[in-house]
Amino acid sequence: MQRPFISFLTDFGLDGAAAVCRGVMLSICRDAQIVDISHTLRKYAIADGAYLLSWSLPYMPVGVHVAVVDPGVGTARRPVALKVARGDVLVGPDNGLLSGAAADGLGGIVEARVLENRDYWLPGTVSSTFHGRDIFSPVAAHLAAGDATYEAVGSRIDVESLVRLDPPRPAIGEGLLESPVTYVDSFGNLRLAGGATELAEALGDLKGGEALRVELAAEDGETSHVEATRYVQTFGEVPAGQPLVYVDSSGNIAVADNQGNIAARLGVRAGRTVRISRS
Amino acid sequence: MQRPFISFLTDFGLDGAAAVCRGVMLSICRDAQIVDISHTLRKYAIADGAYLLSWSLPYMPVGVHVAVVDPGVGTARRPVALKVARGDVLVGPDNGLLSGAAADGLGGIVEARVLENRDYWLPGTVSSTFHGRDIFSPVAAHLAAGDATYEAVGSRIDVESLVRLDPPRPAIGEGLLESPVTYVDSFGNLRLAGGATELAEALGDLKGGEALRVELAAEDGETSHVEATRYVQTFGEVPAGQPLVYVDSSGNIAVADNQGNIAARLGVRAGRTVRISRS
Amino acid sequence: MQRPFISFLTDFGLDGAAAVCRGVMLSICRDAQIVDISHTLRKYAIADGAYLLSWSLPYMPVGVHVAVVDPGVGTARRPVALKVARGDVLVGPDNGLLSGAAADGLGGIVEARVLENRDYWLPGTVSSTFHGRDIFSPVAAHLAAGDATYEAVGSRIDVESLVRLDPPRPAIGEGLLESPVTYVDSFGNLRLAGGATELAEALGDLKGGEALRVELAAEDGETSHVEATRYVQTFGEVPAGQPLVYVDSSGNIAVADNQGNIAARLGVRAGRTVRISRS
Repeated sequence: MQRPFISFLTDFGLDGAAAVCRGVMLSICRDAQIVDISHTLRKYAIADGAYLLSWSLPYMPVGVHVAVVDPGVGTARRPVALKVARGDVLVGPDNGLLSGAAADGLGGIVEARVLENRDYWLPGTVSSTFHGRDIFSPVAAHLAAGDATYEAVGSRIDVESLVRLDPPRPAIGEGLLESPVTYVDSFGNLRLAGGATELAEALGDLKGGEALRVELAAEDGETSHVEATRYVQTFGEVPAGQPLVYVDSSGNIAVADNQGNIAARLGVRAGRTVRISRS
Repeated sequence: MQRPFISFLTDFGLDGAAAVCRGVMLSICRDAQIVDISHTLRKYAIADGAYLLSWSLPYMPVGVHVAVVDPGVGTARRPVALKVARGDVLVGPDNGLLSGAAADGLGGIVEARVLENRDYWLPGTVSSTFHGRDIFSPVAAHLAAGDATYEAVGSRIDVESLVRLDPPRPAIGEGLLESPVTYVDSFGNLRLAGGATELAEALGDLKGGEALRVELAAEDGETSHVEATRYVQTFGEVPAGQPLVYVDSSGNIAVADNQGNIAARLGVRAGRTVRISRS
Repeated sequence: MQRPFISFLTDFGLDGAAAVCRGVMLSICRDAQIVDISHTLRKYAIADGAYLLSWSLPYMPVGVHVAVVDPGVGTARRPVALKVARGDVLVGPDNGLLSGAAADGLGGIVEARVLENRDYWLPGTVSSTFHGRDIFSPVAAHLAAGDATYEAVGSRIDVESLVRLDPPRPAIGEGLLESPVTYVDSFGNLRLAGGATELAEALGDLKGGEALRVELAAEDGETSHVEATRYVQTFGEVPAGQPLVYVDSSGNIAVADNQGNIAARLGVRAGRTVRISRS
């Protein structure tokens, strides 16, 4: 008998709130195998959470995935559970955090339900500030344990009614690819939208080592900044500290410093517009 | 057969010391389910650790709870194991870290013992700086595995002799509640002592949305600071970036910025005196 | 039947990359007990990773140990699996990260193999930037699950051909011990090379509480700095905030501030030369 699998992502930090949820889940489903995807997301950054879920869930075993980045906790935003084609269930707030990962990497949303059945919530009063503990974790654990069916968590809702974030897309011009920074990872690498196909569409076929011009668009009245980079396959093809453009391990374009932190060096955050062209 | 449950809290940080303890515990009790409550506490902050234990242990399955925030390691402070009414055993230094959580949330301390029986310590020399690895973790794991009885860990000691921290309490005046900040959480929210009852006692019945004056007492010669806040149930009732007073998910008064970090904005740390009145 | 044990150390940070590897491992070996040693190493710091592995692996159950600090990912550096006398297998890049821990604490390297057999890699294309996910984690999980034998992962290579870091050693002079800082731990304590034996060799027998002069060598044109410390067994033997010299829990000389952070106070990083003499 396989142990039930739960993955878990929040912006709760490392000082006990995620552990409380883990305790709640293990009290309900003692044999759960729980994997923490991240709890150190930028606070309230729904788009960062959605990015990490979309990227990581395809590598997780089939199971229940709880995610809580929830600036609207206690307000009218719905608590939901999404069933996807791969067989997983995603549990969390209906604010765009879950819908991208459910729709893309896991085969598409098969059914959506709103969490209403208090039999599967934490017994007692539900707080208005900690639904991770009181609603999302216990529902996820009851689903993982198999003592709640997916149908029992609440009424079916229209999949089309779910909040969705606009997926970032690259703009492809004549000799130019433009994209927002979709995520800054812990190495300071700038993840962009679009992959090798879009890059070739914009710039034509690129040879390994080819020189590329990377422009960081002006922001807040500052002028724009240009970096002279190379298009490479591995970090080691440029000297330590030098910038590079590469296709990352999920197939997306990215900009990095070899053995450095380009985001810190240049003060770049998610959302900044990047333009890539031949130099 | 349920897997033995161990929770684990330290100020060891994330660079391996807690993992070494985990390795020691799993070597003794291979099937343990270990939940890390936190390892990124402010170093040596016994009161922060006591706060997190009191808050989180009631949500953990019954089991063994190891906690190590231990500035007096290697000195005369006693290593202890506390048995509580709920059935758990708490293991750690006798410096006030454990006693509050054991006494309040878990039904009260039934029996206390000093760790003396070296059969349940790590074999070999005991270091004078890492009792987490050499004493607390192995004793906890032997208890969890069931190959040590609680009675076997050492002599019974007087429960009244245990070190206790003074629990922070609010002062209730005419139209004024005063409390120290008991904890600053990872969102920067200021947790205070006292709950809805004490607030009503001080200020009378409060309506949702009512304006409240929050004064941060002068500190180190600085003048005091006043914030104009509202008393609300959910963060979303005030605009992003605005301050609020609420009753948190454990029933205590708290002060926060909606989608912001009031502790960072105002430079507030645990211990700062806060005064709340109608404005 | 014992659950397969895997330990895991990387410089990937806490934003999902290590979790993706965990997902990959659990998809292959559903019942694995995985212990994270650390994922918040200084980026690309192979020596820090080697230090933490050498220190922590002897306390882990026998199993498979995956470690990835890999600035040369995608280049000619070899992916390897090292079998050690204790029965463990270490999996990671051949850049010095693994060899010290394998040679010292675990009884010595019995056999080394290069990872070549793609049957045990992640199916599909192997990225050139994320071998943690695509090669190291799946190989480790197949070994832990027992569906790959050690012999099947790839060809045998000469143990002598493995990259090794020079282990830091103290220089012992007349009345003087000199050592680089080998690691700065999360408390800011400065770990040095050599232990009680080398200290006695340099300075003669030391009494508890004896005054010692600690000199931090000049660096980058700065002048050197001298601290007046005491040689003690426990932190509590000096007042809070005061510096001390002690033998740490792994038997090495270390310099610390009691309840403080000497590395932060004095701006010391790994590699800085420290000289200890009687004062």
